[in-house]
Amino acid sequence: MVTGSDGPGGDVGALGEFALIRAVAARLPQTAQVHLGPGDDAAVVAAPDGRVVATTDVLVEGRHFRTDWSSARDVGHKAAAANLADVAAMGARPTALLVGLAMPPETPVVWALGLAEGLGDECAPLGASVVGGDVVASPVLTVAVTALGSLDGREPVTRSGARAGDVVAVAGRLGWSAAGLAVLSAQAQGHDDVVEAHRRPRPPYAQGPQAALAGVHAMCDVSDGLLADLGHVAESSGVAVDLDLAALAPDPPLLAAAATTGDDARSWVLTGGEDHALVACFPSGAVPPGWRQVGVVNAGSGVTVGGVPWPGAAGFDHFASAASEARGDPPRGYHPATWQPPRPAS
Amino acid sequence: MVTGSDGPGGDVGALGEFALIRAVAARLPQTAQVHLGPGDDAAVVAAPDGRVVATTDVLVEGRHFRTDWSSARDVGHKAAAANLADVAAMGARPTALLVGLAMPPETPVVWALGLAEGLGDECAPLGASVVGGDVVASPVLTVAVTALGSLDGREPVTRSGARAGDVVAVAGRLGWSAAGLAVLSAQAQGHDDVVEAHRRPRPPYAQGPQAALAGVHAMCDVSDGLLADLGHVAESSGVAVDLDLAALAPDPPLLAAAATTGDDARSWVLTGGEDHALVACFPSGAVPPGWRQVGVVNAGSGVTVGGVPWPGAAGFDHFASAASEARGDPPRGYHPATWQPPRPAS
Repeated sequence: MVTGSDGPGGDVGALGEFALIRAVAARLPQTAQVHLGPGDDAAVVAAPDGRVVATTDVLVEGRHFRTDWSSARDVGHKAAAANLADVAAMGARPTALLVGLAMPPETPVVWALGLAEGLGDECAPLGASVVGGDVVASPVLTVAVTALGSLDGREPVTRSGARAGDVVAVAGRLGWSAAGLAVLSAQAQGHDDVVEAHRRPRPPYAQGPQAALAGVHAMCDVSDGLLADLGHVAESSGVAVDLDLAALAPDPPLLAAAATTGDDARSWVLTGGEDHALVACFPSGAVPPGWRQVGVVNAGSGVTVGGVPWPGAAGFDHFASAASEARGDPPRGYHPATWQPPRPAS
Repeated sequence: MVTGSDGPGGDVGALGEFALIRAVAARLPQTAQVHLGPGDDAAVVAAPDGRVVATTDVLVEGRHFRTDWSSARDVGHKAAAANLADVAAMGARPTALLVGLAMPPETPVVWALGLAEGLGDECAPLGASVVGGDVVASPVLTVAVTALGSLDGREPVTRSGARAGDVVAVAGRLGWSAAGLAVLSAQAQGHDDVVEAHRRPRPPYAQGPQAALAGVHAMCDVSDGLLADLGHVAESSGVAVDLDLAALAPDPPLLAAAATTGDDARSWVLTGGEDHALVACFPSGAVPPGWRQVGVVNAGSGVTVGGVPWPGAAGFDHFASAASEARGDPPRGYHPATWQPPRPAS
């Protein structure tokens, strides 16, 4: 929770709903594909091939972000990235975001404006913009983002098209966000590269449409962890996936962070979410530049690593995590038991 | 907050995120205009004229609904209606909903399924369906809904097109939801008609496209109160609006409820939101069937009733309401000071 009655510009309760919406909208440049932007009952956005791709993700303070670990702009970038990566994972190009923002009245106005700027900045390089939203009061700071996108005439890439004989390939980082979270949780110093990756993921947006053009069979973004998300692909497609541990060696910054926190960097690579890498199943020989092969698709079911199941949890389940808290299990990342009241905004 | 470890099917924490999503998705029939429904990274929906209308609203427990006053299905109907009415207010036809659901792990599974059914049931008669969403854990039950729609080749109807000489007309109910809220707040018996209207608004969806076909100049839905929402139209259009109090006589169920609660039924009509009536400015002589004239558009600015400003608040501001709570003002509707822990679900 952020408080800021002493912050510049006061809090959102004093400013009021409608003035806040005007201030936010004024910071959101619109692209040519926006027929009607913020300020009316609804926005109107181009859907050039007669279809629209749409996805929603919700981020809750204390569970998906902490305001003492991430700035408002960071949270905006992260909330946008989570949704824009889902659009890319369909082989589509993002066109617009809508944001539903629920926040305590004592939230500083500058926090709400920073969030809007982070959302806008994350989608601007993709040619997308924030076209609308809603702001309401709530005891818990919650950011609900919807992303829209265009397939530009292509067929959507689903999770269910993988076939035995396909090659499994990844674009983007694996385990960086989990490493950053571990560093923050341990209150360790340094490791700015992974901490920054946790605050602002860098999904490989352009690789989504590129994979579609290359004839990819199945694709999804890695939001719950590579094993968990490939588990969804394997189940939807009725196939088995075997990963090659040698192809999934942790990047040097992860090894450095793991040496500090005492964690296993390979676990971050295999089970860490929130980097929003893309993982896809290509016909053999069709893996495009920018993707690296990490496994193969076989007949059967389930996901294995070097032919055997991975020992330990495959990834993140929001409610299983919450239930684990109730049982008094050791904390893992965002967790009420480790939650400290943040410093007031200055 | 709902709790239901003793309810049928257990709670969402025990079921887990992915099983819950599967159970919800199984209850959501899809229409022909859905190219790809729930279960992948994103949905794909038809946008037949190459544009998509999109809007988001967030409902927070204790502020927009109470689980002891409304069933899960009621909340689903209400959350859908708030968004579908925004689509209609653009002159558009709803095509799809996405829902972001944040809830405590102890929320009964039957509550989450009931919400999904309410959402689906509200949009089914319009030919729309729930195509995707997200479920996460949160201390506060929060429902974020995004609605998509099609203009079917028409231009969007904005708030900014009203002109001096236009006729102001309303379709749908005014003040019913506010009356129902007052009855519930007073813990009064009876008045089921307005209580039901509060639980499940009945927006005049079809009148939105109908108004567009009739050449309407400006339109919006009444979500914050007639005076407040017409204030937005007047400001956006650079005109004044004068309402005719005689044309805004409260319906008999409102007069009956006001006799019980001691409120002024005219205030409910002028300042009550959440019925999601449509209010529009038509060229003189162009008011279509199903609409009733309630005022006129003049040169100038602001909204008056019979030529004079209405005494008292014009409508609902989420943050002003929360700030009022902090000052210790008397409670108004949903309010922590009047909030009682609900009965456990049985």
